Amino acid sequence: MRNLKLSIRYNGRAYHGWQVQRNAIAVQQVFQEALAQILPELPDIKGCSRTDTGVHANQYVINFKTESQIPCEKFIRALNRYLPDDIAVYECSEAALDFHARYCCKGKQYIYKIWNSPHKNPFMKGLALHYTHPLDEKLMNEVAQQFLGRHDFSAFCSANSDVEDRVRTVTLARVEREAELLTFTVEADGFLYNMVRIMAGTLLWVAEGKIAANAIASVIQSGERGRAGKTAPPEGLYLNKVFY
Amino acid sequence: MRNLKLSIRYNGRAYHGWQVQRNAIAVQQVFQEALAQILPELPDIKGCSRTDTGVHANQYVINFKTESQIPCEKFIRALNRYLPDDIAVYECSEAALDFHARYCCKGKQYIYKIWNSPHKNPFMKGLALHYTHPLDEKLMNEVAQQFLGRHDFSAFCSANSDVEDRVRTVTLARVEREAELLTFTVEADGFLYNMVRIMAGTLLWVAEGKIAANAIASVIQSGERGRAGKTAPPEGLYLNKVFY
Repeated sequence: MRNLKLSIRYNGRAYHGWQVQRNAIAVQQVFQEALAQILPELPDIKGCSRTDTGVHANQYVINFKTESQIPCEKFIRALNRYLPDDIAVYECSEAALDFHARYCCKGKQYIYKIWNSPHKNPFMKGLALHYTHPLDEKLMNEVAQQFLGRHDFSAFCSANSDVEDRVRTVTLARVEREAELLTFTVEADGFLYNMVRIMAGTLLWVAEGKIAANAIASVIQSGERGRAGKTAPPEGLYLNKVFY
Repeated sequence: MRNLKLSIRYNGRAYHGWQVQRNAIAVQQVFQEALAQILPELPDIKGCSRTDTGVHANQYVINFKTESQIPCEKFIRALNRYLPDDIAVYECSEAALDFHARYCCKGKQYIYKIWNSPHKNPFMKGLALHYTHPLDEKLMNEVAQQFLGRHDFSAFCSANSDVEDRVRTVTLARVEREAELLTFTVEADGFLYNMVRIMAGTLLWVAEGKIAANAIASVIQSGERGRAGKTAPPEGLYLNKVFY
């Protein structure tokens, strides 16, 4: 028995997130269908996290146990042959038998991309939030530093979540500009439901003057979802790195 | 009468290049259809160059004369409303009446993107050449320097071309790597038919050991198309900047 750990990339535009659902196509389902072409019996696939409809992944880690002896590199090539153009495996290795993509995860990095231009960009459609008014990335970067540290992030968690422990430690928060493309990068030991999208929406509200630049600490402290910004749309969000 | 100069971006994947053709959809045709929604009569549109099927543009410049008094910014927004997702206008200005997007062009910059990884990337499909074997970008960059200067580039011109003067001056040639993405950038006062794709294909042949690293000068001097590399596929090519 081998426990295979795979890293995949996907463009989430066409999918209702990772997790298999009724009446909606999920990345996991398409991945399982490709796997079924290669393995005689379908293993139980563990994904590193849920992702929302339309959200992308530069690295999404999964694991599953199999009796198959197909070498890792060959396994990647075989899977990529059956996967559609918007999903691809790029790493495969044999993990310890007790490795679990979700429970062993020590941290994650997300990026949120904003195409900041009055005019649309054909190469960014569905791959970044299109924001037409000029954004001050220096201000946004300064403000983002207030996310750093160990906090109860209840104010940055969707009301639909029933997670009880909402304390997370943010270890990196940065906003950078490369011409018209703004990227918000955030790393933490874990993320609450919609946390990065609410952080991105809050940075946009600060840029718009709807929240004071020095108020983030008090928004965090309040624990009130209503005091943070709007949940930014899914198309700008990428799960970027997964740490073990 | 105003002479409007527009910069557009397009993902060329779905198009048979810029120029209107029989039995094939071209960018120009789709652009004209959008323009027809705004202007009472269709002007004669001049494009800065031909582009091949599947080739992209980060900047493609056009001009046309019109009696319309619609302000430039409003004109961009109106056009973008009617253009499909893979074509967008991002600059519009009023040019001198004798400005011609093609004849006034003093130079162009192209880039050729190579996704250099054993495995495919969902975000690069149709947007870069996928090349699976490791490439030495330092060697390719050194070799590319031999393109610099004023030469007869007949060896780097498609046999289908009937252009007589094949002397061009290359002012910039560079190969860079950012993780698994290689970019070949080249600037010249003008380009022959398929010139950048043949240059890219030649750099790949050097990397593969099919042409000696110091042989480019003699390939240029020979003027023989057969001594240069294969024409690299269109999906990696972008018209990147147009100079006036």
